[in-house]
Amino acid sequence: MRKIHLIATGGTIEKIYSEQSGSVENVESKIETYLGRLRLPDLEIDTTRLMNKDSLEMTDVDREHVLEAVRERLDAPIVITHGTDTMVATGLYLQRAIAPRFPIVLTGAMTPLGFEASDGLQNLTESLFAAHVLAPGIYVVMHNQVFPVDRVRKDKDRARFVSSE
Amino acid sequence: MRKIHLIATGGTIEKIYSEQSGSVENVESKIETYLGRLRLPDLEIDTTRLMNKDSLEMTDVDREHVLEAVRERLDAPIVITHGTDTMVATGLYLQRAIAPRFPIVLTGAMTPLGFEASDGLQNLTESLFAAHVLAPGIYVVMHNQVFPVDRVRKDKDRARFVSSE
Amino acid sequence: MRKIHLIATGGTIEKIYSEQSGSVENVESKIETYLGRLRLPDLEIDTTRLMNKDSLEMTDVDREHVLEAVRERLDAPIVITHGTDTMVATGLYLQRAIAPRFPIVLTGAMTPLGFEASDGLQNLTESLFAAHVLAPGIYVVMHNQVFPVDRVRKDKDRARFVSSE
Amino acid sequence: MRKIHLIATGGTIEKIYSEQSGSVENVESKIETYLGRLRLPDLEIDTTRLMNKDSLEMTDVDREHVLEAVRERLDAPIVITHGTDTMVATGLYLQRAIAPRFPIVLTGAMTPLGFEASDGLQNLTESLFAAHVLAPGIYVVMHNQVFPVDRVRKDKDRARFVSSE
Repeated sequence: MRKIHLIATGGTIEKIYSEQSGSVENVESKIETYLGRLRLPDLEIDTTRLMNKDSLEMTDVDREHVLEAVRERLDAPIVITHGTDTMVATGLYLQRAIAPRFPIVLTGAMTPLGFEASDGLQNLTESLFAAHVLAPGIYVVMHNQVFPVDRVRKDKDRARFVSSE
Repeated sequence: MRKIHLIATGGTIEKIYSEQSGSVENVESKIETYLGRLRLPDLEIDTTRLMNKDSLEMTDVDREHVLEAVRERLDAPIVITHGTDTMVATGLYLQRAIAPRFPIVLTGAMTPLGFEASDGLQNLTESLFAAHVLAPGIYVVMHNQVFPVDRVRKDKDRARFVSSE
Repeated sequence: MRKIHLIATGGTIEKIYSEQSGSVENVESKIETYLGRLRLPDLEIDTTRLMNKDSLEMTDVDREHVLEAVRERLDAPIVITHGTDTMVATGLYLQRAIAPRFPIVLTGAMTPLGFEASDGLQNLTESLFAAHVLAPGIYVVMHNQVFPVDRVRKDKDRARFVSSE
Repeated sequence: MRKIHLIATGGTIEKIYSEQSGSVENVESKIETYLGRLRLPDLEIDTTRLMNKDSLEMTDVDREHVLEAVRERLDAPIVITHGTDTMVATGLYLQRAIAPRFPIVLTGAMTPLGFEASDGLQNLTESLFAAHVLAPGIYVVMHNQVFPVDRVRKDKDRARFVSSE
């Protein structure tokens, strides 16, 4: 069995619609439910629910927690689910601190998992695949795209990532 | 072919997730997309998109528009999709003005159509069925329940309607 | 809490795709999984998995089992899920033997639950609603249609039921 | 825009449930409907519906057609959707004839697209990603796995591919 670490930090991909407030919120993790819909016969996913935050609310203390979690899991590829707004900031924070021997893939979603037209399961699928086949390094993977974390920015209007070069 | 009028006024059932704002909004009608997923071989649905409002923002002017639309469609059963917060108020407004010869069914959803765990398609299915089989009158229909409009209230905490008796 | 008995006998609604044989088969019951997707806050469904047969293979011995199961559950409305090919035959068999005080609703599907374009959940939703609101009698309910069991036949080419009058 | 050629040949991934026969059949292509559910902002997919066959019925004449179609599309990565039973045979047939400068990825599904628990969209997602990032060569890609076509066989009982080494 191959192994991948998955570290869940929240973001849109994990948001849930609240019938009481009428808004979408980071309340409970749902990544594992969706991982259960994928066929991964020779893959063991070790999932860690580190936090569940809108990435606009992530602080450097939170990023330090992410870094610590990553440092403890450098024995295998890592997928980090994260809000898209500050995903690149977190990726750069990691890049300044570590030089991994396996790929570290940051991913997320523009629309929460389970909503119509969600890109969440596509992005999870791609990221798990990327973690399997890419060279060591830190990447953003979504929408059939792969970006080294130091050459990417979010294009909010178009709801996608683009090269920052 | 039997005929049913469907009058769409908005509410949670029609809300759409905005990737730019990260909130759910009444932007465009999606009832018809979901009606297309039902098999209704001997039923003609005449759909009117009257407005697309959160029902907390509906005014008496809006209710007057609903009443006018209903008055023009009294030749067949009517289903009205509506926000749940003031669905009963609109139903009572209609009841004070008309005594229909066919059932008028108000319905909506606690979670928007197309979101995981949405009750929207269930409620549409039930309401179209209720409009077919119930006696003349004005009803709220959701969650396998039927309430005469003057004997029902929303229980917001439990995200359902209950008898007001 | 209201109560409804649900008696599952198999049929297309319960068929499952076999990856080994490449065909669809009646192997295990899945009605309850789909009932779990409906919101039924004041309804208790007492489900009995009586058999799981393609209805073309149902014999009079099987119909006698259905009749016995029905006889033991005449204290509340009953929904029977059944293959469409001989659904009417089973309904007539029941009608010759009993005069229920509650509605008995036969339903099924043209395409199995969980397949794209399945009508199964629509038919379950309608049948549970019909069992709540119809007068005592034995009915076939599917596709927003209600037929007394002695006035209906399957139109196989059009994959629907039609009046036999 | 990057470009990928997609050549559809049929197989389980494209099978459709027939309400008349009660079996699953290769009748019409549905790959493009499902591609439409993926977000591929900088990818142009040039889709060719070459044939729609159960791969057990593919002949060497059919494989020659596949080879011709591939030869005409060697200017970009290629994804070939194919029945799993003879996917490896077709891949080896291609490998004997060509040495591509881009990856050629064979994929399919154990359960048709649109059926519950289908692996089809996962496999399409992975294959489009693989076609983007893998080195030139001919591969089978499914279930988060990548196999060079000369080192893989189907394990029918477990409904997956395994290394043949």
